[in-house]
Amino acid sequence: MAPISESAIRQAMARAISLAAEGLGHTSPNPVVGCVVLDAAGQVAGEGHHRRAGGPHAEIHALGAAGARARGGTAIVTLEPCNHTGRTGPCARALIDAGIARVVYAVADPNPVAGGGAHTLAAAGVAVEGGVLAEEAAAGNRAWLTAVAAHRPYVRWKYAATLDGRSAAADGTSRWITSAESRADVHRLRAEADAVVAGAGTARADDPQLAVRGVDGPVTQPLRVVVDTNATAVKPGARVLDDTAPTLIAVAPDADAGHLPAVLRLPRAAHGPGLDLTALLAELYERGVRSVLLEGGPTLAGAFLAAGLVDEVVGYLAPALLGAGPAALAGAGVATIGDAVRLDLTDVTRLGPDLRITAVPLTPVTTAPEEN
Amino acid sequence: MAPISESAIRQAMARAISLAAEGLGHTSPNPVVGCVVLDAAGQVAGEGHHRRAGGPHAEIHALGAAGARARGGTAIVTLEPCNHTGRTGPCARALIDAGIARVVYAVADPNPVAGGGAHTLAAAGVAVEGGVLAEEAAAGNRAWLTAVAAHRPYVRWKYAATLDGRSAAADGTSRWITSAESRADVHRLRAEADAVVAGAGTARADDPQLAVRGVDGPVTQPLRVVVDTNATAVKPGARVLDDTAPTLIAVAPDADAGHLPAVLRLPRAAHGPGLDLTALLAELYERGVRSVLLEGGPTLAGAFLAAGLVDEVVGYLAPALLGAGPAALAGAGVATIGDAVRLDLTDVTRLGPDLRITAVPLTPVTTAPEEN
Ligand SMILES: NC(=O)c1ccc[n+]([C@@H]2O[C@H](COP(=O)([O-])OP(=O)(O)OC[C@H]3O[C@@H](n4cnc5c(N)ncnc54)[C@H](OP(=O)(O)O)[C@@H]3O)[C@@H](O)[C@H]2O)c1
Ligand SMILES: NC(=O)c1ccc[n+]([C@@H]2O[C@H](COP(=O)([O-])OP(=O)(O)OC[C@H]3O[C@@H](n4cnc5c(N)ncnc54)[C@H](OP(=O)(O)O)[C@@H]3O)[C@@H](O)[C@H]2O)c1
Repeated sequence: MAPISESAIRQAMARAISLAAEGLGHTSPNPVVGCVVLDAAGQVAGEGHHRRAGGPHAEIHALGAAGARARGGTAIVTLEPCNHTGRTGPCARALIDAGIARVVYAVADPNPVAGGGAHTLAAAGVAVEGGVLAEEAAAGNRAWLTAVAAHRPYVRWKYAATLDGRSAAADGTSRWITSAESRADVHRLRAEADAVVAGAGTARADDPQLAVRGVDGPVTQPLRVVVDTNATAVKPGARVLDDTAPTLIAVAPDADAGHLPAVLRLPRAAHGPGLDLTALLAELYERGVRSVLLEGGPTLAGAFLAAGLVDEVVGYLAPALLGAGPAALAGAGVATIGDAVRLDLTDVTRLGPDLRITAVPLTPVTTAPEEN
Repeated sequence: MAPISESAIRQAMARAISLAAEGLGHTSPNPVVGCVVLDAAGQVAGEGHHRRAGGPHAEIHALGAAGARARGGTAIVTLEPCNHTGRTGPCARALIDAGIARVVYAVADPNPVAGGGAHTLAAAGVAVEGGVLAEEAAAGNRAWLTAVAAHRPYVRWKYAATLDGRSAAADGTSRWITSAESRADVHRLRAEADAVVAGAGTARADDPQLAVRGVDGPVTQPLRVVVDTNATAVKPGARVLDDTAPTLIAVAPDADAGHLPAVLRLPRAAHGPGLDLTALLAELYERGVRSVLLEGGPTLAGAFLAAGLVDEVVGYLAPALLGAGPAALAGAGVATIGDAVRLDLTDVTRLGPDLRITAVPLTPVTTAPEEN
């Protein structure tokens, strides 16, 4: 039989990457993974992706779809197959049992608990190859890979502002700075995140619900988190306390929080006001949160940025000018131009009348200390 | 002889439009104009553009290059040929004398003094047609056409800012927010403008030279204007007073300006601080200025915007965050989100690491009252 061409392998990997993306927002604390099984003749026999934590892995879905055609075939997977018996059996074993002759993966599993699948496969006589479309696959798993390496959730800060950087007018009004298209895109970001975080100032000013609305397809509502040091901003009846999604109100150890259904006690920040944000992220990581959408406001975003805890910035810029009103970002600890937080623009997209700018910090971000 | 195809005419017009653009910054108070002369067989016989005020018009250059081949030919011009004897003879007459059989132009001449060329040509038996690539040609002459219609110079406001809308850090440092590529682009904008305008605050903080530097090809230095109500910001020895280009310091009628070489006395603003900006633009228009590059700072830009005197906004956004420092725009008279100055993004271009955003106000701008 003719060997399967490199280009057929790459094409299958590209398909696996796009299958993986369908899992975004649903798989935490697991990564998103996609898999395509080709039969011995190189024809697509089965496809699958990891749909939700606790459910079967991508390989199991794809092997199930392929059935007997998997025998002598090739499995193309976005992440190195796992080796451990967690809530589901190890995928390396399942691939061997199905008679797969060759496994091609994109990114090695950085997780020491699950790693080693490639070794197990090779020991069983399966041809194993890694690194195909690794960059594209890593980009699709960027939040999870960053989180696992840093031992804290990946933090994406989202803001909406005018061209002159105002997030509200002088009288505090901000509905709507950006267009319906931009606001819908924010709901997509929420749906991709495991948790949405907002500050006490935003809770006081806007009483936001912080839930995903109007998104097509299945939605896993992210955990809602409000950082409310003294438990004074989130009042009983606040929209963030409705039953759309779970909610945690982060408060200080001594805060009087009897009126709040679910609180997270955190130490106060060692320097400056409010709570210890590193502790917040460590707690969220413990609870399986791998990606956070930080929705501000400006003060909380400034504190995250000053602590080096922002991995990605998504700005929605409305083609409008205000000339007055609060800035999109406050108090990031920068005093002089040489200390500006420099970023690299990774994407610029027009959304209706607006512009969405995505950027990542050029300077390495801070990781949480090892937890043991 | 086969008639010249529509597509050949449009191709020649596109060429004429790009020829016209070479005149930007040099022709004021005249528009930029380009011309291509095709011979009777439809071959390019001559090209030309208006190079500088007082010099020959585009048609004269192109007819000169075509020589005897112009007889029976077609002239393609971006603007309706002029009909009046100004510093140069009327182009309509020159085209007739050269034996041109057909004239195709893009935009009708809005200038009542120069208009009527099409009529003269037709009366002499020349086939005349207007409106070909009119939109493209009008875009190339946008500043001049807007100025002539509004009886004041076209105002392009340029600013540089971080993603969070800061034009300097908290300590006032701003060199360099944007990249070398962006700064070079600003010099291109200066070179295209007839005048560069800055405020007293900028003069005090930066002592800017406001001249064109580092631009390829011939440069006509724009007039430099500083709005310095009390003649206290521009000191003897200020860089804006060097001999690179002419300079006007706009001051109040009663300002003590003995130390300044060239002052422009203007009434104070009827409302608010500083000088009457409508009077400033009217004076500049009188002196032949058709396009102004407003380089701020934030306070002066806010005053122009509040007065409805900004026709185009060019923002250079650096992928950086400050979280503190002066905003790119101040006091534009907007108090609530519904009153935001809404714009339409007309261009988004990456310049090195930065983003250049061009936008035009959606609301009609204010025109100066008729001057007689
Ligand atoms: N345009 C946008 O994208 C956008 C997004 C969100 C909000 N907003 C606007 O932003 C405004 C509210 O922003 P804001 O800056 O006043 O408040 P904020 O950033 O939402 O919240 C700041 C507050 O969070 C609490 N906090 C707890 N720990 C903190 C820490 N380590 N660092 C900093 N803060 C900590 C503090 O209040 P306690 O001490 O009381 O806990 C602090 O005052 C509203 O007008 C809202 O509409 C705009
Ligand atoms: N990032 C950028 O693109 C950029 C560009 C330029 C400047 N800047 C920065 O901006 C800062 C200076 O800005 P600024 O806002 O302080 O000053 P500014 O806008 O340069 O000048 C404002 C001053 O102009 C005078 N003026 C005269 N007529 C006026 C009128 N009708 N309306 C408003 N002002 C009028 C007033 O001073 P008098 O009453 O004394 O005449 C007023 O205070 C500097 O730090 C500079 O570096 C940044």
